[in-house]
Amino acid sequence: MTDPSRPIYLDHNASTPLLPEVREAMLPYLGEHYGNPSSPHIYGRIMHDAVERAREQVATLIDCTPDEVFFTSGGTEANNLAIRGVAAAHPGRRHIVTSVIEHPATSEPCNFLQQQGYRIDRAPVDEMGCIDVQSIREATDRDTLLITVMHANSETGTLQPIREISRIAHACGSLVHTDAAQSLGKVDVSVQHEEVDLLSVAGHKLYAPHGVGALFVRSDTAIEPLLIGAGHERSLRPGTENVASIVGLGVACAAARQDLAESSALIRGLRDRLWDRLADQIPGLALNGHPVDRLPNTLNVRFPGVSGNALLAACTTIAASTGSACHEAGSDASAVILAMGIPAEEAIGSVRLTLGRGNSREDIDRAANELIKAWRRL
Amino acid sequence: MTDPSRPIYLDHNASTPLLPEVREAMLPYLGEHYGNPSSPHIYGRIMHDAVERAREQVATLIDCTPDEVFFTSGGTEANNLAIRGVAAAHPGRRHIVTSVIEHPATSEPCNFLQQQGYRIDRAPVDEMGCIDVQSIREATDRDTLLITVMHANSETGTLQPIREISRIAHACGSLVHTDAAQSLGKVDVSVQHEEVDLLSVAGHKLYAPHGVGALFVRSDTAIEPLLIGAGHERSLRPGTENVASIVGLGVACAAARQDLAESSALIRGLRDRLWDRLADQIPGLALNGHPVDRLPNTLNVRFPGVSGNALLAACTTIAASTGSACHEAGSDASAVILAMGIPAEEAIGSVRLTLGRGNSREDIDRAANELIKAWRRL
Repeated sequence: MTDPSRPIYLDHNASTPLLPEVREAMLPYLGEHYGNPSSPHIYGRIMHDAVERAREQVATLIDCTPDEVFFTSGGTEANNLAIRGVAAAHPGRRHIVTSVIEHPATSEPCNFLQQQGYRIDRAPVDEMGCIDVQSIREATDRDTLLITVMHANSETGTLQPIREISRIAHACGSLVHTDAAQSLGKVDVSVQHEEVDLLSVAGHKLYAPHGVGALFVRSDTAIEPLLIGAGHERSLRPGTENVASIVGLGVACAAARQDLAESSALIRGLRDRLWDRLADQIPGLALNGHPVDRLPNTLNVRFPGVSGNALLAACTTIAASTGSACHEAGSDASAVILAMGIPAEEAIGSVRLTLGRGNSREDIDRAANELIKAWRRL
Repeated sequence: MTDPSRPIYLDHNASTPLLPEVREAMLPYLGEHYGNPSSPHIYGRIMHDAVERAREQVATLIDCTPDEVFFTSGGTEANNLAIRGVAAAHPGRRHIVTSVIEHPATSEPCNFLQQQGYRIDRAPVDEMGCIDVQSIREATDRDTLLITVMHANSETGTLQPIREISRIAHACGSLVHTDAAQSLGKVDVSVQHEEVDLLSVAGHKLYAPHGVGALFVRSDTAIEPLLIGAGHERSLRPGTENVASIVGLGVACAAARQDLAESSALIRGLRDRLWDRLADQIPGLALNGHPVDRLPNTLNVRFPGVSGNALLAACTTIAASTGSACHEAGSDASAVILAMGIPAEEAIGSVRLTLGRGNSREDIDRAANELIKAWRRL
């Protein structure tokens, strides 16, 4: 249960707390063990071995081999490396397919390539926030370098039909990248099942620290580095390895794998309880996102007749958001919700409530009551 | 004193241990405090405020304003951002001046730009490893975008005449970048005194963690981001901030500032003691680097008649290196030492012994004895 002196934390899609076992695993690499993982002496070897153990843990979670995992400084760098790295390695193809609901860490690299002369197609989504596969199919051709779409949307939680999209890409000899930052640790993600060539991991959405992530690059995929320097990460990502945080990411992946079904079921139950309580008392409350095929922790709802920002401002005992933390804090409706065809005057009432491992039933009941009270007041 | 069960750590230029106060300052951000620094609620604000406090601490150490400090994932990213970022922002200038002794995190971005059509001039060094200012002066012209030279060489410790170089650059309307990764926390570094436009900071050389660094960018310097995404770090460096590590970097900068003169004098005394002991017993031992104008912790010496790698292999109670950890571990002589005009058969005997805050007089005396014994055996 949340410390009663603090607001109830319902913003896990913005950032997660560290798992206690993640913190414990990191501590020796923030004290007892030091040295440069590239150094051949014992200090360096201990650091090097810790990085390689973490690489195996990440690989196990996403179902690839350790040599297909490259550590980065986070999800933004992983997405940049994926998109711009394959573009640099495949100068013959000048077309990218993406969607209208991507995070800036994906949409901005695509916009950058568009300025360089690439053609970019952005597939729309349906009223549940699901990317339109038919648009992807129609847009993809023999000039398509890459299809890049997120695994689950961070605002609505809607899961995307990645496997189907991968098959469209591969039929044209194109590559597929998915940003799985928001999905990992919440639902099963296998790069084999999804048939993707590249997949981004972000630590701080997965109960690991900020400032660490990884990119899966399927063996034999041609890709150029984004940062340039010494030979770290087999020359794809130079820079002395972020050892303690990489160790934390590895342990977070191991924890996610160990009890994913159990923790997801628990969190899904709490989320549905929250929805039931709110819907029972607030006539006209509507769900943003897919009713079933979405992240088990994500509840994005439209409150009728109020703005989401005003509601959260009136509800100081809850820490939640109206959209992605990475977007400008503004009073406008979320672009993701608008893209689903929700009218602006309705979209503005949206609030994203995202649960996590720390939330208790008491938290949820208190949060529901507070939200209902605040809505009635406004 | 080093734990007697472990080799004596004399590889601080490869990586430093965390200061206890750095670790302590980080811990709350690896447990109690979490959330996304971009979130407007209290969880986010605590993280945001911690980042801004660290920004002030970095700024104070290097003598700039906080808004001139941009956090990165480390020194490699800072150098890439500096060099390629100003290149992207100044398409009219296509010439870069650098030196022959740069770290790959500087030389490789320069090589990359050369492949894009830039002219690159690489100034030589003298027999003490000091960059030849006259060569810099002759190379610099009105087409010169940037002069980028390291503040102190990581292998020899030789300090470079940055201020003089800055004046040459500015006379031609060019920018100056210096990689100060190796100098910070060892000698005073002021961006005002050095008159540089850009300066790179790396956490793990400064008793802060791996995977965090910063770039100083003087106000009004035009620079383009390298990673692209959301608006973090005033859009120059997107990606959710690496909060705990940034906090650690800030505290390490504060610690460096607080007792730099004292800790440097202590370490310099130990280093000179090590040199005296070795030189006394090993006829023909020679110093690599400047006898005076070099980092107070760095002792790079050429042992006569042996290879440095063989000597270190025979000396298992010491953890040191024959060159930069970031270069390939090979049996060849260091390119930095060769560039100083040392013949290859002599250069191969070089060993870099780099001291730090953890070393005691007992460590140094033991290390000297071990090195002398090993040299005599070989």
